[in-house]
Amino acid sequence: MEITVQQVAQLLEGKVDGDGSQMVSRLEKIEEATAGSIAFLANPKYTDYIYTTSATAIIVKEDLELKKEISAALIRVTDPYSSFSKLLEEYQKLTQIQKSGIEQPSFQSITSQIEEDVYLGAFSYLGENVKIGKGTKIYPNCVIGDNVTIGENTILFAGVKVYADCKIGNHCKIHSGVVIGSEGFGYAPQPDGTFKAIPQTGNVVIHDHVDIGANTVVDCATMGSTVIKNGAKIDNLVQIAHNVEIGENTAIASQAGISGSAKIGKNVMIGGQAGITGHLTIADKVIIGPQSGVPKTIEDQGIYTGTPIMDHREFLKASIAIRKLPELLRRVSQLEKKG
Amino acid sequence: MEITVQQVAQLLEGKVDGDGSQMVSRLEKIEEATAGSIAFLANPKYTDYIYTTSATAIIVKEDLELKKEISAALIRVTDPYSSFSKLLEEYQKLTQIQKSGIEQPSFQSITSQIEEDVYLGAFSYLGENVKIGKGTKIYPNCVIGDNVTIGENTILFAGVKVYADCKIGNHCKIHSGVVIGSEGFGYAPQPDGTFKAIPQTGNVVIHDHVDIGANTVVDCATMGSTVIKNGAKIDNLVQIAHNVEIGENTAIASQAGISGSAKIGKNVMIGGQAGITGHLTIADKVIIGPQSGVPKTIEDQGIYTGTPIMDHREFLKASIAIRKLPELLRRVSQLEKKG
Amino acid sequence: MEITVQQVAQLLEGKVDGDGSQMVSRLEKIEEATAGSIAFLANPKYTDYIYTTSATAIIVKEDLELKKEISAALIRVTDPYSSFSKLLEEYQKLTQIQKSGIEQPSFQSITSQIEEDVYLGAFSYLGENVKIGKGTKIYPNCVIGDNVTIGENTILFAGVKVYADCKIGNHCKIHSGVVIGSEGFGYAPQPDGTFKAIPQTGNVVIHDHVDIGANTVVDCATMGSTVIKNGAKIDNLVQIAHNVEIGENTAIASQAGISGSAKIGKNVMIGGQAGITGHLTIADKVIIGPQSGVPKTIEDQGIYTGTPIMDHREFLKASIAIRKLPELLRRVSQLEKKG
Repeated sequence: MEITVQQVAQLLEGKVDGDGSQMVSRLEKIEEATAGSIAFLANPKYTDYIYTTSATAIIVKEDLELKKEISAALIRVTDPYSSFSKLLEEYQKLTQIQKSGIEQPSFQSITSQIEEDVYLGAFSYLGENVKIGKGTKIYPNCVIGDNVTIGENTILFAGVKVYADCKIGNHCKIHSGVVIGSEGFGYAPQPDGTFKAIPQTGNVVIHDHVDIGANTVVDCATMGSTVIKNGAKIDNLVQIAHNVEIGENTAIASQAGISGSAKIGKNVMIGGQAGITGHLTIADKVIIGPQSGVPKTIEDQGIYTGTPIMDHREFLKASIAIRKLPELLRRVSQLEKKG
Repeated sequence: MEITVQQVAQLLEGKVDGDGSQMVSRLEKIEEATAGSIAFLANPKYTDYIYTTSATAIIVKEDLELKKEISAALIRVTDPYSSFSKLLEEYQKLTQIQKSGIEQPSFQSITSQIEEDVYLGAFSYLGENVKIGKGTKIYPNCVIGDNVTIGENTILFAGVKVYADCKIGNHCKIHSGVVIGSEGFGYAPQPDGTFKAIPQTGNVVIHDHVDIGANTVVDCATMGSTVIKNGAKIDNLVQIAHNVEIGENTAIASQAGISGSAKIGKNVMIGGQAGITGHLTIADKVIIGPQSGVPKTIEDQGIYTGTPIMDHREFLKASIAIRKLPELLRRVSQLEKKG
Repeated sequence: MEITVQQVAQLLEGKVDGDGSQMVSRLEKIEEATAGSIAFLANPKYTDYIYTTSATAIIVKEDLELKKEISAALIRVTDPYSSFSKLLEEYQKLTQIQKSGIEQPSFQSITSQIEEDVYLGAFSYLGENVKIGKGTKIYPNCVIGDNVTIGENTILFAGVKVYADCKIGNHCKIHSGVVIGSEGFGYAPQPDGTFKAIPQTGNVVIHDHVDIGANTVVDCATMGSTVIKNGAKIDNLVQIAHNVEIGENTAIASQAGISGSAKIGKNVMIGGQAGITGHLTIADKVIIGPQSGVPKTIEDQGIYTGTPIMDHREFLKASIAIRKLPELLRRVSQLEKKG
């Protein structure tokens, strides 16, 4: 998608200083920008880059004064950062709006229903009684199991797999390779050492405005539902086990794992590679550091780190102290000899 | 799938107390149950829920006496827990039995062979000389490489990828997004700092009754086979590297990683996010805690936790002691001043 | 693929000792070899296996003297290890050369371009303006987004998903289930506790000779590019976040995670399950141990382990000292009583 610098200025209600007829097609950082791109200058620290950047146009504050001539065109606006953010959003909208219609070959069971403005990519599969809401986009090679309901304006990128009976809300983004509704890891050990699988007959219910990162897995409940509430954001390669509940606006970073039946509160933040044991509760607004291990319920708001977790300041102190431990052992031996 | 309360009672050889003509379609927990569902009461602790639940029917012990009227129908049986388990199993069987036949478009090479009662989902791919046993179900969008053999009554859920030459046994369940037989991470460092790939020409052999969770990866052997033995249960997002052997009835929780050529015994349990170094052996029945790091061979049965692992009780003591370490440093300084 | 022992000997410029007309089809280790396979003997430690192995043929040093009769045919060569490596490479080439042509049904947008000798597997999808270079193989069920460029002689195994605008170089191997270019985990927290997504408009650029393991995820940059440079080798289930740079010939083991905007140098080695914080730099040739946590920039070459990392020798000492900590607490209390 190529547009002129002048068209960008109009969109941002800014004024062009330089050649507005040049074409631009990308958004880049001022310090790395290449010809054909638009960059922005908000932080005064980066001002010198406007004399060296290869960007075709730079969004700057309306009252910026130049110390010498520059090659880039300027787009003068009230708030360069906000203008650039707006541009980023418009750019992304344009890219995603392009997808529409039903590509062939795709597979729609006779009993599946899709509303208007749905995009169904080639090699995607809709099972029996599937319902897809208005404006939802299903990229190629997705598999939507029987009785699944997906709301409006949700995006499933290429290769998402949703097992039977799950529900996904409105305005969600589910990234490539995500698996929703696979059977939980539930087995009853038998006297002969083998395992008997506990039937997993529940589903996954995902509310609105939930984002799920690539190759993350959300298991179905043994009975009832594994639930991810409004506005939760989940990164790549995360494990959400059976019967877990994730509260509203909770954010979970990459490669974290939440074990079965854990209830995570609202506005919780869980760091990358952290592990949460099953059958516990984490209070609202708790922050768990990366690589931490949470063995039991957390009732009090706070920042927790370590395996097993402790108060974050306590963790920092202990981390420093551990390095002094070999020396401490020698010091204590010395004291014992004296004593 | 909707059936009447009366039909459920017949299946369980129980007696209906209330309106047996009502329709039910789901199994739920008594404390969370909604209209149209069946729940059960086995634990006396939950008895009060029978007066408040919205379940349409409740499976109860035959001699239960009511203190007041309830809205739900009762199904009276000898052992409510066993009856409910039976119901769960029947429910799951019914759901999975529905899939059969060859959906189109799918891809079968001329040299591939499938036995009777196989389900092949749309957009699934069978390479050259593939053999699929009786009653096996391959959901949509699976890719089965050349010369792969899959046994009887095994299920591959949507989007499983099996590389050439691998073998999968009978009664296995392989969940969505699993990759079997990808090339192991084997490189010979060269004097100029580059890596030369060591050809990975082996395969993966999976025996019977093995379950593998969503998005787990099992690499092929450099030569010979990576082997997963009878009854092993592997959770989601697990890494099984080249030439690993997993013993019978061993269970591996989510996000654990087993490095190349490790030999894991029978009935071993490995916790979530644990990491096992390569070229070592773990004895039968060993239990490894979550997030633990195993640097060398474990010969003795026991519970091990920590990075690097120690005896689990030792780990618990050390975990508590670490918090006292900053204070301990001060106490020793104090003693030294006195001395 | 079956060939005679004599044909193998010709390929290796060796001499057959025994029946050269026997058929062989596999390469196996001497201690595990089965009938129909070729094994090799390089390490004198394994010499006794030539009397017990079931291999049909064994590659041995030209001057090997037998102590008694054996059943296997011998192929006598100057350097058995090199000969066997050559055989492994030939074997792998033969297997992969077999794939060619465009399988149907597959999806090529009208604006996509493929050069000669490309393999496009069934159910694979090429978006608008996609360009695929000479000799590249795209296995079944891959999805290549709009404007993606893939170089020459690269292999994408089954089920790889590449988002729009990404670039992949020459001679790369991308394994099944890999996701390239998914949106990074970037959100601006709002006063009401919700998150506003920061548009992710950049791409991923992968240079030449890069290998990426199964189910690994590489996120696109917020702006600009997430970059993986020449010769980098990345294992399975690894997380590479937005705007990360991976230097030349850097190797990253399974389940490691690299957070946003981290710059990893050349010839770095990162162990399995290690976690690297965002917005930091790791110097060339640094080695990070498995399960380690790197909280800040590393400027000096060295081996680092632990969470947070310390010098590897320091980590080993601290690991041993931690076990003595509960006892140390008692010893200090004892000293305090005496004092």
